[in-house]
Amino acid sequence: MNTVLQDPSSVSTNLDIMHRQILDGIIIKPEWVKYTSSWTEEDKARLVFAWHRLSAWPDVVQGLAELKKHKIVVALSNGNMRLLVDMAKHANLPWDAVFSTELFNTYKPNPKAYLETIRLLGTTPEKCALVAAHMWDDRAAKAVGLKTIYIPRPDEDFEVPTGQIVKTKAEGGIVDFVVSSFGDLAKLVEENH
Amino acid sequence: MNTVLQDPSSVSTNLDIMHRQILDGIIIKPEWVKYTSSWTEEDKARLVFAWHRLSAWPDVVQGLAELKKHKIVVALSNGNMRLLVDMAKHANLPWDAVFSTELFNTYKPNPKAYLETIRLLGTTPEKCALVAAHMWDDRAAKAVGLKTIYIPRPDEDFEVPTGQIVKTKAEGGIVDFVVSSFGDLAKLVEENH
Repeated sequence: MNTVLQDPSSVSTNLDIMHRQILDGIIIKPEWVKYTSSWTEEDKARLVFAWHRLSAWPDVVQGLAELKKHKIVVALSNGNMRLLVDMAKHANLPWDAVFSTELFNTYKPNPKAYLETIRLLGTTPEKCALVAAHMWDDRAAKAVGLKTIYIPRPDEDFEVPTGQIVKTKAEGGIVDFVVSSFGDLAKLVEENH
Repeated sequence: MNTVLQDPSSVSTNLDIMHRQILDGIIIKPEWVKYTSSWTEEDKARLVFAWHRLSAWPDVVQGLAELKKHKIVVALSNGNMRLLVDMAKHANLPWDAVFSTELFNTYKPNPKAYLETIRLLGTTPEKCALVAAHMWDDRAAKAVGLKTIYIPRPDEDFEVPTGQIVKTKAEGGIVDFVVSSFGDLAKLVEENH
């Protein structure tokens, strides 16, 4: 993502297209070409579109449904709109709305992505929280004034080895809350409602 | 809407703001001022935000749920994003995604509204249908190549007096299908699936 911020014009802001560009760059490398030279267009498309058919972590569907009773729950993702719509349909994610950074012609962690979403929701950063499994995402959200919630997911965050405890602000860290699931987050919101 | 297309810079593309501007223009007229001069800021805001708390027609929630089994179902509305999110939450509308023309800095029937939505969905006009209760909306959608479906709603369409039959293309009209409810539309899609 640093490359994107340094030179946004160097990449497409449609993640499907970027995924394909990355794949095309990998499969022509000498160490891969013996496996990939026989791949058809369909094989490559199927790999790129695997992102559209991801499964949710087991706590997500029920947890989001609980959270939605109290809050507006939206996705804000670097995935393109169609990817997110397909993903939500495939995994049955009950988002209130879908915001792709494609709408804003950028990628997170560009502050614009967070601020434009908040503007379109007719609200202010301090009334919103970003829930993320990546510290870079929470850090960028914090920088523009959002509350930040971290949910650890195994092998998801290159900054946080699986099993390492992430500290909250109260414990000297940077995020407001760490929760283990969307169900726990819904309970936390319910208790503070 | 014609005024908007002639001079888009004359109005806000946030419908809440435009509704408020229209309200402010009405309530200072001599025939209204005796009723409205005592209105507080809260009274005016409550009127503007009534759009966020609309009820759905009785066929909509179940009909959309059926339709969603076969198709991607999105809103494309002149309402601003927050209005649409609130409306969906209030009326329990299970849209796969919400597209406000606010995202494209215009209003329907500007062709850009339809075409940008189709682009973001990674598809083409001929694979999409617009479902509308206003002929002006279907007419604009047809002009950019979408299929068109009309659902009559009493007192909704200034071009079509309540009870007047709208003709399909097969009958010499301009829309592809006329259906009486989202349930009927879901059945039509299921039969042609």
